Amino acid sequence: MTYCVGIVLDSGMVFASDSRTNAGVDYISTYSKMKVFEKAGDRAIVVMSSGNLSVTQNAINMLEQHSRRDDPQGNIWAAESLFEVARLLGTSLREVRERDAIYLQQNNIDSSASFIIGGQIKNERMRLFRIYTEGNFIEATPETPFFQIGETKYGRPIIDRVVTPATSLMEAAKCVLVSFDSTMRSNISVGLPIDLASYERDALQLKVKRRILESDAYFNMIHTRWGEGLRHVFSQLPDPDWGNEGATQAQYQGEIFK
Amino acid sequence: MTYCVGIVLDSGMVFASDSRTNAGVDYISTYSKMKVFEKAGDRAIVVMSSGNLSVTQNAINMLEQHSRRDDPQGNIWAAESLFEVARLLGTSLREVRERDAIYLQQNNIDSSASFIIGGQIKNERMRLFRIYTEGNFIEATPETPFFQIGETKYGRPIIDRVVTPATSLMEAAKCVLVSFDSTMRSNISVGLPIDLASYERDALQLKVKRRILESDAYFNMIHTRWGEGLRHVFSQLPDPDWGNEGATQAQYQGEIFK
Repeated sequence: MTYCVGIVLDSGMVFASDSRTNAGVDYISTYSKMKVFEKAGDRAIVVMSSGNLSVTQNAINMLEQHSRRDDPQGNIWAAESLFEVARLLGTSLREVRERDAIYLQQNNIDSSASFIIGGQIKNERMRLFRIYTEGNFIEATPETPFFQIGETKYGRPIIDRVVTPATSLMEAAKCVLVSFDSTMRSNISVGLPIDLASYERDALQLKVKRRILESDAYFNMIHTRWGEGLRHVFSQLPDPDWGNEGATQAQYQGEIFK
Repeated sequence: MTYCVGIVLDSGMVFASDSRTNAGVDYISTYSKMKVFEKAGDRAIVVMSSGNLSVTQNAINMLEQHSRRDDPQGNIWAAESLFEVARLLGTSLREVRERDAIYLQQNNIDSSASFIIGGQIKNERMRLFRIYTEGNFIEATPETPFFQIGETKYGRPIIDRVVTPATSLMEAAKCVLVSFDSTMRSNISVGLPIDLASYERDALQLKVKRRILESDAYFNMIHTRWGEGLRHVFSQLPDPDWGNEGATQAQYQGEIFK
């Protein structure tokens, strides 16, 4: 499984991906799911992938190949907007699935794949896209300033509660790590290391590129203190007093169902 | 969508289900997903259902019909073990799906359904089962003392962190409500009222049967204080200090990825 998050804030962007890949529980390995295309002063683009590894790798390889050949139709280094880059990646994904999906299907292997792609190109604003398995895509807006792909649900509540466009870069990075901690606790197929990148608006180069390993002191602190904090808040909530039904009815104005 | 949780503790059991049903977002209604079979001093059995409403209702109706006819092969009031009751419900589910699934399939309607069933029958220990769409089932164990069906992921982390067989009944009920609060926050198709039942070991009748409405003071307190508590714990965690890369490397012993 996979977990990736991309957030676009007023002040910048945060990207994070896990790196566990499994083809069955007896074949687990580590692959980075984050790819950076960066040319300082011109563009900083981060791509994160989820789904069938051969499909996502091939799609990104095709994008790179087009770019090396300096194909004017498909050069990630020449594209004038991130919209264009998202379209290139969607097209590459379609080409790979057209070639491979039918063969995978013969063995009931899922060929679905998706991407989060974001960053900034000179003379354009920061942008964040989510590309679906069919190659179509959507863009993040201030109302929905983040995208997740892969195992998204365990880690979503804390992002929902905390992140708005006004959140600071480092606070959003902290939130992303709490979100990963919850996800890894409930799904062992999401695992360390985490690749984390942050981008400051208009910098046209990444601010932080960090691989978080098991030895990472900051992440371990988050893990421990968040768990302790949750248990503390929980223990401070009063238990219900429903044993005493008379008092309860008045106290909580509830209603007994039949 | 649906969310149901059943927990078996050393001291008793807790059951909770939401009651929102939707056939498309423009057809939302309220149905209880919890059914109680109770004969004080003899048995207390709670059934919660998830999936296609016509399938789950029909399966439970068939179970009741068999019981009214005093069919010795299928009487929930005469069964000597909960294992037997789980098998009866699994069989009813299979019969309904054999009859209806092919017609539903013609319109691409999902006929899948599942149940949590638990409680205690005289001369037996408390037991908790999860019945799958195919009619087969598993039983909870001390290592895995709870089952969830429906929209399970948003509300799972807090149960994972808090509940063990040694947890008290009221603390488990509190945990279940926190879990529902997280789920309803992230998935609007899970909604109030919540039906909540608790059972004290060997009592052979339910202790609490409660319908939690929007006006429920206890649930509203949980909602507010849990949200505030989470944000407080989050705000108390220090932000990462990665901007200052020199210090950070030493401080957190991380590693920059390429």
